[in-house]
Amino acid sequence: MKKYRVGILGATGTVGQRFAQLLEDHPQFEITAMAASDRSAGKRYSEACAWKLPGSIPASVRDIVVQPIEPPLECDLVFSSLPSSVARETEEAFARAGYPVISNSSSYRMDEDVPLLIPEINHDHVRLIEKQRENRGFTSGFIVTNPNCAVVSFAPPLAALHRKFGVESVIVTTMQAISGAGYPGVPSMDIMDNVFPYIAGEEPKVETEAQKILGEYVDGAIRKADFTVSAQCFRVNVLDGHTASVRVNLKETATLEDVVDAMKTFPSLDLHSSPATFIDVTDEPSRPQPRLDRDSGNGMTITVGRVFPDNIYDYRFVALSHNTLRGAAGCAVLNAELLIDKGLIQILD
Amino acid sequence: MKKYRVGILGATGTVGQRFAQLLEDHPQFEITAMAASDRSAGKRYSEACAWKLPGSIPASVRDIVVQPIEPPLECDLVFSSLPSSVARETEEAFARAGYPVISNSSSYRMDEDVPLLIPEINHDHVRLIEKQRENRGFTSGFIVTNPNCAVVSFAPPLAALHRKFGVESVIVTTMQAISGAGYPGVPSMDIMDNVFPYIAGEEPKVETEAQKILGEYVDGAIRKADFTVSAQCFRVNVLDGHTASVRVNLKETATLEDVVDAMKTFPSLDLHSSPATFIDVTDEPSRPQPRLDRDSGNGMTITVGRVFPDNIYDYRFVALSHNTLRGAAGCAVLNAELLIDKGLIQILD
Amino acid sequence: MKKYRVGILGATGTVGQRFAQLLEDHPQFEITAMAASDRSAGKRYSEACAWKLPGSIPASVRDIVVQPIEPPLECDLVFSSLPSSVARETEEAFARAGYPVISNSSSYRMDEDVPLLIPEINHDHVRLIEKQRENRGFTSGFIVTNPNCAVVSFAPPLAALHRKFGVESVIVTTMQAISGAGYPGVPSMDIMDNVFPYIAGEEPKVETEAQKILGEYVDGAIRKADFTVSAQCFRVNVLDGHTASVRVNLKETATLEDVVDAMKTFPSLDLHSSPATFIDVTDEPSRPQPRLDRDSGNGMTITVGRVFPDNIYDYRFVALSHNTLRGAAGCAVLNAELLIDKGLIQILD
Amino acid sequence: MKKYRVGILGATGTVGQRFAQLLEDHPQFEITAMAASDRSAGKRYSEACAWKLPGSIPASVRDIVVQPIEPPLECDLVFSSLPSSVARETEEAFARAGYPVISNSSSYRMDEDVPLLIPEINHDHVRLIEKQRENRGFTSGFIVTNPNCAVVSFAPPLAALHRKFGVESVIVTTMQAISGAGYPGVPSMDIMDNVFPYIAGEEPKVETEAQKILGEYVDGAIRKADFTVSAQCFRVNVLDGHTASVRVNLKETATLEDVVDAMKTFPSLDLHSSPATFIDVTDEPSRPQPRLDRDSGNGMTITVGRVFPDNIYDYRFVALSHNTLRGAAGCAVLNAELLIDKGLIQILD
Repeated sequence: MKKYRVGILGATGTVGQRFAQLLEDHPQFEITAMAASDRSAGKRYSEACAWKLPGSIPASVRDIVVQPIEPPLECDLVFSSLPSSVARETEEAFARAGYPVISNSSSYRMDEDVPLLIPEINHDHVRLIEKQRENRGFTSGFIVTNPNCAVVSFAPPLAALHRKFGVESVIVTTMQAISGAGYPGVPSMDIMDNVFPYIAGEEPKVETEAQKILGEYVDGAIRKADFTVSAQCFRVNVLDGHTASVRVNLKETATLEDVVDAMKTFPSLDLHSSPATFIDVTDEPSRPQPRLDRDSGNGMTITVGRVFPDNIYDYRFVALSHNTLRGAAGCAVLNAELLIDKGLIQILD
Repeated sequence: MKKYRVGILGATGTVGQRFAQLLEDHPQFEITAMAASDRSAGKRYSEACAWKLPGSIPASVRDIVVQPIEPPLECDLVFSSLPSSVARETEEAFARAGYPVISNSSSYRMDEDVPLLIPEINHDHVRLIEKQRENRGFTSGFIVTNPNCAVVSFAPPLAALHRKFGVESVIVTTMQAISGAGYPGVPSMDIMDNVFPYIAGEEPKVETEAQKILGEYVDGAIRKADFTVSAQCFRVNVLDGHTASVRVNLKETATLEDVVDAMKTFPSLDLHSSPATFIDVTDEPSRPQPRLDRDSGNGMTITVGRVFPDNIYDYRFVALSHNTLRGAAGCAVLNAELLIDKGLIQILD
Repeated sequence: MKKYRVGILGATGTVGQRFAQLLEDHPQFEITAMAASDRSAGKRYSEACAWKLPGSIPASVRDIVVQPIEPPLECDLVFSSLPSSVARETEEAFARAGYPVISNSSSYRMDEDVPLLIPEINHDHVRLIEKQRENRGFTSGFIVTNPNCAVVSFAPPLAALHRKFGVESVIVTTMQAISGAGYPGVPSMDIMDNVFPYIAGEEPKVETEAQKILGEYVDGAIRKADFTVSAQCFRVNVLDGHTASVRVNLKETATLEDVVDAMKTFPSLDLHSSPATFIDVTDEPSRPQPRLDRDSGNGMTITVGRVFPDNIYDYRFVALSHNTLRGAAGCAVLNAELLIDKGLIQILD
Repeated sequence: MKKYRVGILGATGTVGQRFAQLLEDHPQFEITAMAASDRSAGKRYSEACAWKLPGSIPASVRDIVVQPIEPPLECDLVFSSLPSSVARETEEAFARAGYPVISNSSSYRMDEDVPLLIPEINHDHVRLIEKQRENRGFTSGFIVTNPNCAVVSFAPPLAALHRKFGVESVIVTTMQAISGAGYPGVPSMDIMDNVFPYIAGEEPKVETEAQKILGEYVDGAIRKADFTVSAQCFRVNVLDGHTASVRVNLKETATLEDVVDAMKTFPSLDLHSSPATFIDVTDEPSRPQPRLDRDSGNGMTITVGRVFPDNIYDYRFVALSHNTLRGAAGCAVLNAELLIDKGLIQILD
């Protein structure tokens, strides 16, 4: 089968590196273009990139010459992990030039005509693309986004509950991994023997994105879920894996068994990167743990544990996801697989 | 001035070591007896104890011969940091033998006739001692306790709010330091690059102790404060300093300024170990941090930051205290200073 | 092909868990017996074992009922990771009962008639087995061992140099991972924000084992290599991966290029667990690093970097290996594969 | 007594912050001028500085307005912790303008007419100042330096041995704390669960500075000690405290007792910041440890342990010092106290 040619925008960053890693040996994609800032442009990828993942730079991309971040690129779609400062303008330029843009940036997430996707939850939100093209005059191009990495840790169990019982309100306290800040990212002096109680811009994202993700597509728009989220976000001394401590109030009565069952039976999809289990619910008292559970399902499974009735809220639980896989590059790749499945990406000639 | 002679029960443990450190050069106390498990009894303290605090064993206790944990001991009062498995029986034996027992253990904390003290908040609860003696037939002896170390991180700001506006309900998520588990305590393989979502027995303590601490002494009993607490407790990769992420609903309306002011103006006491500031409220966005703030006020100040209106609750904030100082040994020493001030401890001859 | 049936002695420990992980889906082995201390015997493996590796207990061993550590066990060979206190007696009992014993313990490593194997370096040392059987009256059984995990990090590059130029003396300073101490192992209070300068019994092992590994098989005995090793061993705050800082004096003159070339070209074997590259030499100035390089070659490749002429010694370099894979369970599995290849293990009926 | 007025060059950096902390309440000094890069100049110190030490900015410097780094400054001497890129030119400008410059930078350390001081070892090297003034045409100003922070951890025990027995050669492997790299300094992704085998420019410094420090002042020059040093330098996951693993060959025969005695009896000085014990030699097998020993003597004592005969070298030992106190700001303050004691700094009017 002919593979889709992929361009990476922001190829040298930590999420860019995850894209390179995930697409090595992917049956549907091959990376044909790497774009990064002017400082990197013109160099071979292996020279431009300070590789920070275990192992070495995949052989297939080592020698690709990095290009400036502007169309045209020799590819059928682009993955973007641009910093939000430049993402808005650049991603639009690519969409306008005809490229499907699968973005990990926050710039377009809350735009009304842009899908904010966790495919297992809201794959039908891709129907917004039609409206988006109308609104923005895009022809073959478009933009889809994946959520903030902290949101991804608790939105799936919430979706399971929302669909069955309705969610009324959510209190979430996150303990987030350092890789979420990229490289060089968090100075070691800020996090060793420490908890850092502030992540710039994070709490507002965590308080608003889930309502869109769990919303309903109605007539070219998303009707957001009407629950409220309160978020306090912390950085902790963990490499990968965001942990969320959650309390939730439901609209309808549900037993503990109902709650666990709703999570456990929430279906995965049948895409290449889909994990066998989307939400893994454990009853071991000391799980989930980032170090032990983050790589579950190749980093694409959400692990939930310590599901109990709460003193104040209906239920409490702890949810964990791999922030640079399920919460960033892995989710974007899954989005691209979904878009292919829906016939929304074409191989150009 | 003649010093009070102190015995330490559980002298070789991590809290026992903190007692040794804090009482070195204390103007009111001198350690005259060290008691520990049979394995240690008969050895010099310096031989029996695997010292884990910075620096060396204080010279004044190095050569004290460790005794079995049973009365009589040559002292005017005892500090106890016994494991809860043996604390109940042993502490009673000492109280019955006439010793004031200042306990850091959980055994008696919730007993109706035992004070659970944070002196700045509820020093008048020492009046329970009279009832306790009546109930239990103690003569000169008695038992007072200090709270669970996680409770101590958020009970002070809560007390400030409760006194002014009434607290209705509290959601707290704790990120607790490894020293709270003693030594050897937390295995490094459980906490390196990890968050551990379970601390045995912790959540029930955190959900019940604050109501007693903030209660009112009425006629020989404590009328507990009537708010509800929901607690999720996590161990994080921090040496010292428990961080609490808190949401609170108040009974009366209060502005953000009122809330901050109530905390800031909550008075400290005038005892030897009292910090100049009991609750330090900071408006730096990235504070409190365990590494930077735990030693504030010689580890006896509570630092509060990120006080904001919450989406769901009235207010949210982050509170931090040093878990083995303010949350354990330091609080016990302060309790003893309080008891002396109230005339409840005598120098025996 | 029929698989060899494997028994694990010390199945619930950290190395035992690695065996379970490595043999899941292994083409030549299947685990048919799990043996552990009396406390565990009689329980299902999933109940007896506090699993500390990422992911879950392999399905194929979850329900195996743990047996006491004594023959007979239903298997064709046993892997042993027993603590040295019991290893000597128990391993002999199994060998005497006819089982090939592939041991990760230190008990027999320096016995004259017991092979101490790193297969790429000294696979011919298996010829000692004949002598061993003679000496000890074993019939079908025997014992082979793999080296101390710290030795494994630097013995391979040393072997490469020794074979080409002769090694005269070696100064090694190790920085060892916490997983080397098993579970619960290193208390977090000993290693967080710390370097621990003492590992019981380690320095003597590191100073003596390499000479045997690099020795020559001559007439039923190993003539040890005649160089001297000086070792200082430290525990550092790393999960997996032992780093060795090495200076070496050679008997013959060699250029830097010669030295690098000798390491790079040292051949791997063609066994199932053999890595494509046995010794990977990098010229990136900041490699090897445990986090980035320990999993190279599925944890079976040794990574060497910072090879330079030294001010005092001929050369210096930094070597790294995965201590629980290449340095423990992985090496033992490779040993078993080697023994099968040499026809030394039979499938019993 | 009138205090010497101090200016800090590079006041907002981590060493600059240590100066602010150490000089708070110092009986001989008061900070009257703070100088930092153009970005900070004009702001109050509390605004310009991202304070990273425990506690808060000392009250006495909070409101000092930061000035550009150029003379004149209102002070009697300057402490410099400028980055080496600008130190050379700037420090000369201050010396030429008449200021005693006590520098923590590496720029002038190896200049023949500049003292490289550890006062306990080589206080007489201040006699170079006369030559320096001659050479460079300085009048009242001059430059003195303190050594690289890693050198400071092992130069003191080496000095003790050198003076008694003569040192012939030294093999040192360092495990250095993250605070040595300043702030933001080491990215957390480079050091969490890791050992970083490269510190730019470090090994050459460690291989050359000790010979000058331990040299002899003869006729306006330093005759360097004639031993050779081989250094491999690593960054480890420790906040403060550099550990050195050392082997040493001596010129004369010495027993283990002689060696320990030479270190133990090496005298401290009688300056304000002098520790009671300069070199503390411990025989506890698991000491020194950074977390437990770095603050010994207010961070000014060197702790040595694990002194043993070596297999290859005469002796081996482990040495530890606090890298930002004894190894940087503390050493500079001690240097200034020495210079006052020698009458080399005047209070200007």
